[in-house]
Amino acid sequence: MTDIKNDRLMLGDIEFTSRLITGTGKFSSRDFIAPMLEASGSQMITVALRRVDPTAKDENILTYIPDSVTLLPNTSGARTASEAVRIAKIAREAGYGKFIKIEVITDMQYLMPDNHETLLATQILAKEGFIVLPYMMPDITVTKQLYDAGAAAVMPLGSPIGTNRGLEMKPMIKRIIETSKIPVVVDAGIGRPSQAAEAMEMGADAVLVNTAIATSNDPVLAGKAFSFAVKAGRMAYLSRLADKQAYAQASSPLTGFLRE
Amino acid sequence: MTDIKNDRLMLGDIEFTSRLITGTGKFSSRDFIAPMLEASGSQMITVALRRVDPTAKDENILTYIPDSVTLLPNTSGARTASEAVRIAKIAREAGYGKFIKIEVITDMQYLMPDNHETLLATQILAKEGFIVLPYMMPDITVTKQLYDAGAAAVMPLGSPIGTNRGLEMKPMIKRIIETSKIPVVVDAGIGRPSQAAEAMEMGADAVLVNTAIATSNDPVLAGKAFSFAVKAGRMAYLSRLADKQAYAQASSPLTGFLRE
Amino acid sequence: MTDIKNDRLMLGDIEFTSRLITGTGKFSSRDFIAPMLEASGSQMITVALRRVDPTAKDENILTYIPDSVTLLPNTSGARTASEAVRIAKIAREAGYGKFIKIEVITDMQYLMPDNHETLLATQILAKEGFIVLPYMMPDITVTKQLYDAGAAAVMPLGSPIGTNRGLEMKPMIKRIIETSKIPVVVDAGIGRPSQAAEAMEMGADAVLVNTAIATSNDPVLAGKAFSFAVKAGRMAYLSRLADKQAYAQASSPLTGFLRE
Amino acid sequence: MTDIKNDRLMLGDIEFTSRLITGTGKFSSRDFIAPMLEASGSQMITVALRRVDPTAKDENILTYIPDSVTLLPNTSGARTASEAVRIAKIAREAGYGKFIKIEVITDMQYLMPDNHETLLATQILAKEGFIVLPYMMPDITVTKQLYDAGAAAVMPLGSPIGTNRGLEMKPMIKRIIETSKIPVVVDAGIGRPSQAAEAMEMGADAVLVNTAIATSNDPVLAGKAFSFAVKAGRMAYLSRLADKQAYAQASSPLTGFLRE
Repeated sequence: MTDIKNDRLMLGDIEFTSRLITGTGKFSSRDFIAPMLEASGSQMITVALRRVDPTAKDENILTYIPDSVTLLPNTSGARTASEAVRIAKIAREAGYGKFIKIEVITDMQYLMPDNHETLLATQILAKEGFIVLPYMMPDITVTKQLYDAGAAAVMPLGSPIGTNRGLEMKPMIKRIIETSKIPVVVDAGIGRPSQAAEAMEMGADAVLVNTAIATSNDPVLAGKAFSFAVKAGRMAYLSRLADKQAYAQASSPLTGFLRE
Repeated sequence: MTDIKNDRLMLGDIEFTSRLITGTGKFSSRDFIAPMLEASGSQMITVALRRVDPTAKDENILTYIPDSVTLLPNTSGARTASEAVRIAKIAREAGYGKFIKIEVITDMQYLMPDNHETLLATQILAKEGFIVLPYMMPDITVTKQLYDAGAAAVMPLGSPIGTNRGLEMKPMIKRIIETSKIPVVVDAGIGRPSQAAEAMEMGADAVLVNTAIATSNDPVLAGKAFSFAVKAGRMAYLSRLADKQAYAQASSPLTGFLRE
Repeated sequence: MTDIKNDRLMLGDIEFTSRLITGTGKFSSRDFIAPMLEASGSQMITVALRRVDPTAKDENILTYIPDSVTLLPNTSGARTASEAVRIAKIAREAGYGKFIKIEVITDMQYLMPDNHETLLATQILAKEGFIVLPYMMPDITVTKQLYDAGAAAVMPLGSPIGTNRGLEMKPMIKRIIETSKIPVVVDAGIGRPSQAAEAMEMGADAVLVNTAIATSNDPVLAGKAFSFAVKAGRMAYLSRLADKQAYAQASSPLTGFLRE
Repeated sequence: MTDIKNDRLMLGDIEFTSRLITGTGKFSSRDFIAPMLEASGSQMITVALRRVDPTAKDENILTYIPDSVTLLPNTSGARTASEAVRIAKIAREAGYGKFIKIEVITDMQYLMPDNHETLLATQILAKEGFIVLPYMMPDITVTKQLYDAGAAAVMPLGSPIGTNRGLEMKPMIKRIIETSKIPVVVDAGIGRPSQAAEAMEMGADAVLVNTAIATSNDPVLAGKAFSFAVKAGRMAYLSRLADKQAYAQASSPLTGFLRE
C-alpha cells in the first residue's frame, strides 16, 4: 500500500505536507486570503514585494496571512538579474525569510520569463543562502543549468500568467519532470482543478495557483477545490493508475448469462 | 456564497450527496470493494447481473457491498433491447431494486453501445417503473429521445470502456450537458482523476469510474483520489472560475517598486 | 514505389480520381462555383434540392455546375426517413442522377443527424437503386448497419456543420475507418486544409468541404488549397510515414567533426 | 483576389518561391535526394557539415544536390557558441555560401537547443555577414533578442527532432509568429503534411521537414506531399478562412421545400 501519510514535499531544507502553493494577487478583498488558506490547507503563499509596506497597516498584505504559512516573496517587476537580486535582498532584510521566487520578465504582452537573466539571478542568490525557486519557460537545458546553479526547485509555466489555459506546454513539462533532479512546481496558467490534478498525475511535485482562486466567484470554495484536485492527482500518481489502452476492455462480463 | 452543503444529485426520486458512481468489475480481490466504497464515499455501485448468484455465498458480489450503497444493476451482455428488458426484470424480481443501467452492445471490438436498441429498452423499462440510466454513444438527438422515453439520466461514454482515454468526445459531451433536461453521468473511459474533474467542471452531474479504480495498484487510495477529483470539479463548477484568457494578466504588480 | 497515378475512389460503380467533394451553399456569388470546381479539381458537388428550380434560370444552381461534375443531391430539410425518401425520389425524377446524400436532422441547434432515421432511409433507397451516401454521427455500430443496409459509403461528421472545428470526433472517426467495409467520407466541420489532410492521413477515402471554401475571402484559391491538402494527405497515407516517436532522433550527426 | 503568384519568402537578401526547406539526413539512399528535391520544389536544403567531405566523391553529399538549390549548412554537433562559430566559418571557407543554421545542443536525450549559446553565436555570425537562421526552443523573449542580434529568421522547434510529433508547442509558436519581426520557420518534429499545413495556416513563413520525408516508404512522394501541404496552408492563410464557430450553421437550407 502507498504511504500517503508520510508523503512530503521538500523545498530546500523545509518540509511541507501540502503541495498547493497559493498567491495573494487579484483578490477582490484581502479578507478572503486567510479563509482561503485555511480551506485549501496551503502552507506557502507568494507575495509581491511591492505589496509589502511595513508602515501602512491597511496596505500591508502580511497582516492577512497567518504566521503558520511560509512566505514566498517574489521578484515581480524585475527586468534583469540584478534587479531581481536587489529585490530578494530587500525582502530578506525586511524579515520575509529565505525563500525567494525569481521572476524576471521583459515581455510585457505575454509576461514570459527571461530564462537567462533568471539563471544569473539564481546563481547569485543560491550562493548567498536563499532557497531559490526560479519561474521559467519550460526548457530542459535551462532546468539542468538551474540545478547546477543551486536552485531548490524549478517553476516552469503551464501557460501565460492569468490565462487559465492550463498545461499548454504539457509535453515539455513532462520531459522536465522526467529529467529534473530537483522538485518541479508547475506555476502560472493553471485555471481549473482538472489542470492541477493532471500536473500532479504527471509527477509534478507541486503547483502554484493564484488567479483562478482569487478571481472565482467564491475564492474559499475554489481554494478547497484546488486542494482536493492536487491531492487527487498526487494519490493517482502514487497509486499508479493503469496506462491508456487502445482497445476497449469490458468491466462487466459480456458473454451474458442469457446465453449460457 | 455557494451552498455546497445542500448540493444534491437526483436520480429518479432518489437523492445522493456523492456524485461518484463506482463499479464492481476487475478488482484483483473483492475484499477491496467495501474499503474502496468507504474511502470514496460512493453511494451507488454498478453490478453486472451475471455476477449475482444468490445461491453461491463466495461468488455473490452483493455480500461485498454495504447495505447503505444503492445498487445499479446493469444489463451487460445484452445485444438487443429485449435481452436488456429481460435482464432488468430478472434483477428486479431478485430484489435488486428499481435502478437499471441499460447496456446494449453488439460491437465486440470497441464495446460501443447500440443507441437505438438502448432507446427501445428505455421506453419499455421506464413505463414499467424502473429508474432507467441508459449507457449511450454521445448524441444529442438520442439524448432528447431518451428524455422523451422516460430516462432518469443519460450516461454518454467518455471513451471506450476500460481504455482510460478520458473525454475523447468532449465537445459532444459539452453539447449534451448544455441541452439535456435530465442529469448527465459521464460513463466509461475515465482513467484519471483529472478527467473526472474536467467532466464535473464542464457541468456533468456525476461520473462513473470502475476500471481505473479497480486496476490501480491501490484501489482504496485510487477511490479516494477520484472522490476528491469529483468534489474538486463540482466545487469549481459551482464557484464559477473565470474563462480562459488570450493574453497574460499579471497576478503580481509588474511596474516594480525599484522604478518608482 | 506507390502507384499514385492509379489511385481511385469508388462510390457505387462510379470511379473518381479526386477525393475532394465540394458543395454549393454559402457562396457570396454563384459565379465562384465553376472556377472553384476547376481550381480544386473536385469531381462531385452536393446540391440541396431546395436550390434546384428548373423553371427559374437565374435561380437554378445547376446552370453554374459544369456537366463533367457529378451531382450529389442531398435531402437537407428532411426530418424523417420518409421525407428523405421523398426528396430523393423527386431528385431522381428530375434527372439529377442516382447519387443521394441522406441528411435527416431534427436538432436545430447543432444540426446533428438522426442516425436511426438515416438508417431507415438508407435501407429503402439502396433497395431502389440509389447510390446512397448517408451523413451520420460517428458511430461504428451504425456504420456496420449502414453497410448492411446497402450504403455506398458513410459520411461521419468531423464537427457540426459550418463550425470549422475540424476532427473533433477524431478517435471515433479513426475507429470507423479501421472497421468500415465501405469508403469513409469525412463530412462537415472541416474548416482548414490541415484538417482535410489529417483526415486523409488517417485513411479516410475522401472529404466533403463546403463552408470553408465558400466563405473564404477567395473561394477559388481556397478550393485549390483544399485540393492540395487532400492530395498531400492521401500521398502521406500511401507513402506510409513513420509513427510518432517518444524520444528525439538526430537527423544530422551530433558527434561533431570538431571532436574527431 | 490574393496575389499568390508574387508571394515570396525573403531570407536575408535572398528570395524564395518555395516555403518548404528540406534536409539531407536519414535517407536510406542518397539517390533519393535529387528526385525528392525536384518533386517537392524545395529550394533550400540543410546539410550537416560533418557530411561534407570534398575529397571523397562517394561520400560528399553535395554531389547529390542540384546547383539550383541553396545550401543551408548547419552547425550540428556544436555544444557551445564558439564551436558553432567555428563550424560556420569552416563552411564558408569551404565555399558553402553565406547561410548558416545554428544548432547548439547539449541535451543528448531530447536534443533540445541551448537558446543562450545560440543567441551568442547569432550575435557573432550576423556581424560577420552570415545570413543566420537559429534553431531554438520556442521563446518570445529570445526571439526578440535574436532579432536584435541580427538573425534573418528564427527556427522554433515544433517538437523534438525526429519524433514526428508536430506542433506540440503550438500556442507558443503562435505567439512567436504574432510578435516576431523576422520570418518564422518551424523546424523539427513535423511528421505529417497536416502538421506542415497547420504551421502555415497559423502564419509561419516556412517549415523545415527532413526525417518524415527521408524515412517514409516513398521519399519522393512524401516530398511532394509536404510540398502540397505547405502550399495548401499558405493559400489558406492568404485566402483568410473563417474562424471556428461555436454553433452549427447550415450550408444547405433546412426549412425544406416539402413544407412550403
